[in-house]
Amino acid sequence: MFVQPIPTLCRDGDSVLILDQTALPWRSEQRRLHTLNEVAHAIRSMQVRGAPLIGGTAAYGVALALATGSADDAQLEHALAVLAATRPTAVNLHWALARMAAVLRPLAAERRAAAAWHEAGAICTDDAATCDAIGRHGLELLRSVRTAGDRALRIMTHCNAGWLATMGAGTALAPVYAAQAAGLAVEVVVSETRPRNQGLLTAWELREAGIPHLLIADNAAGLLLARGEVDVVITGADRIAANGDTANKVGTYLKALAAHAAGVPFYIAAPYSTLDFACADGHSIPIEDRGADEVCTVYGVDAEGVDSQLRLCPPGTRAANPAFDVTPAALIAGIITERGVIAPDALRRTYQGARR
Amino acid sequence: MFVQPIPTLCRDGDSVLILDQTALPWRSEQRRLHTLNEVAHAIRSMQVRGAPLIGGTAAYGVALALATGSADDAQLEHALAVLAATRPTAVNLHWALARMAAVLRPLAAERRAAAAWHEAGAICTDDAATCDAIGRHGLELLRSVRTAGDRALRIMTHCNAGWLATMGAGTALAPVYAAQAAGLAVEVVVSETRPRNQGLLTAWELREAGIPHLLIADNAAGLLLARGEVDVVITGADRIAANGDTANKVGTYLKALAAHAAGVPFYIAAPYSTLDFACADGHSIPIEDRGADEVCTVYGVDAEGVDSQLRLCPPGTRAANPAFDVTPAALIAGIITERGVIAPDALRRTYQGARR
Repeated sequence: MFVQPIPTLCRDGDSVLILDQTALPWRSEQRRLHTLNEVAHAIRSMQVRGAPLIGGTAAYGVALALATGSADDAQLEHALAVLAATRPTAVNLHWALARMAAVLRPLAAERRAAAAWHEAGAICTDDAATCDAIGRHGLELLRSVRTAGDRALRIMTHCNAGWLATMGAGTALAPVYAAQAAGLAVEVVVSETRPRNQGLLTAWELREAGIPHLLIADNAAGLLLARGEVDVVITGADRIAANGDTANKVGTYLKALAAHAAGVPFYIAAPYSTLDFACADGHSIPIEDRGADEVCTVYGVDAEGVDSQLRLCPPGTRAANPAFDVTPAALIAGIITERGVIAPDALRRTYQGARR
Repeated sequence: MFVQPIPTLCRDGDSVLILDQTALPWRSEQRRLHTLNEVAHAIRSMQVRGAPLIGGTAAYGVALALATGSADDAQLEHALAVLAATRPTAVNLHWALARMAAVLRPLAAERRAAAAWHEAGAICTDDAATCDAIGRHGLELLRSVRTAGDRALRIMTHCNAGWLATMGAGTALAPVYAAQAAGLAVEVVVSETRPRNQGLLTAWELREAGIPHLLIADNAAGLLLARGEVDVVITGADRIAANGDTANKVGTYLKALAAHAAGVPFYIAAPYSTLDFACADGHSIPIEDRGADEVCTVYGVDAEGVDSQLRLCPPGTRAANPAFDVTPAALIAGIITERGVIAPDALRRTYQGARR
């Protein structure tokens, strides 16, 4: 079982501790959340990010809302609505809230707070187990990938779908950690992931875990793939439609196109709960636009090592900033879930009516 | 004839004035170069950038070297060698130096300086005429592109291949300026172009020229193309092989893949001198790696509007930073040159033995 170097999310009495990801990769800072609004803010401002972690944090948001108020129906529904509105694309958020609602709605108000704490904790424990299972299935798959020459297996990823994005080992990076534990030599090619540079989080967490890695600008992914310098691509997912079309961090689609052109297998790693059978295909997945500021502002440290931000564009620059894109199922070799590796066109057959 | 709002390169007596592009988009600052080494530094540090402008600047570098020294064979060859070593990928650099060498080598030393000034000036004038011709041919092509609905024609570009990159109207943007002059409504989708953010230069020059534009992170190009929000893609080129494979700023290939997948035509606009018939195909084009610093450092302005830079990565982060990638001919609808629009597979037929 993978143990997170620093817990991304944990209950501490009547509050919740998160690892504030907006301070990374410079400082690892925990932040204490006491209220529903603090949780909603943490999700919206991406202090927590990554689909599974957003789901877990939202579940604790429900618990905080009920623990600090009357826990009647109005308050429960208010908490669910506020949290559901924080991020539009990640299906895990809605899945976690639905799981909380299913447990809490039938209960009397006075029993809800305790049940909410319990269920949120269970969501976290389940997620860690899910990550471990994804890692096991992914490791089998990595053992079958051919490496050029006798160098370490080169795995390209995009954005951050490692332990930082979950309550366990991660999704896309779970197979990497499983490979490390099994003694299989791996190296990770990390794309910067503009505009929010989550690739730097990935570089940070890989460094914490002692895994060799190479940072690239997103633009360099095509050349590296075309040159045979990458053996396999694995990314996470924010929502997977019934036909296998997958929404993930913007830029994923370009890497999938380049992998396909180079004959390099492209995999999605995600908990089964990321599947949204209510979405027939990628066209019905809503894509969040996060505004021009993210494109025009960048965060880093100055010469004195102090956290700072810079404006990249002159004021008034118009920008489009879709946070996700959709990778068509035809470009995806398989979806690594806790239930095994599933071909995109076989997803529907795995659907048993209830979404676990 | 297009007139540059600010000259990118001009002779001023015994020195040369350049527009320092490392100060843009924040300040437009001219810089005076007096020596060969100052010119070499200006090219290497990307104070001047863009294949045609690098060629013109290098030509003036030869003139400065000969005007300030003995202008004997040793000095001429030294100047040519120093300038040739500044940037490895751009063929215009070598083309401009070969043109200078062809004129200067046969001359007596005392006649070389004057001839060098004259020839460098002619290279600049020729480039401006070339840009105008590219604009005329590109405009015809834009008139034939279908726009979705009745919005302005949406042209995506990458990096900066506008007037800032040349001594005239630019290459990829020459058709845009020709369209503006002809009253055809256009809007340009500008990709940021990490790691050096030349897209911000493109946004700046379009703003100076009054052309509507929309900035995006490089990662967003795939989604916009897939959604039908772009009608045509035009980029410049640093070197075009005999079979039409084209080296251009890293990230071009990913946009070409996404355009191809979306059925959107992808064009290269470049002077005919960008063609390198000595390169059979893209595999023989050398690709410059510019080191980790560019990926890990970003330039902008701080809250007080002062030029500043930030480190994005913790010290010691390993990064790969190829500056160019190769777009295979099969993804290119045509190459817009001053001689007309040429299909990649027809390039060889246009080759008459002498290059230009």
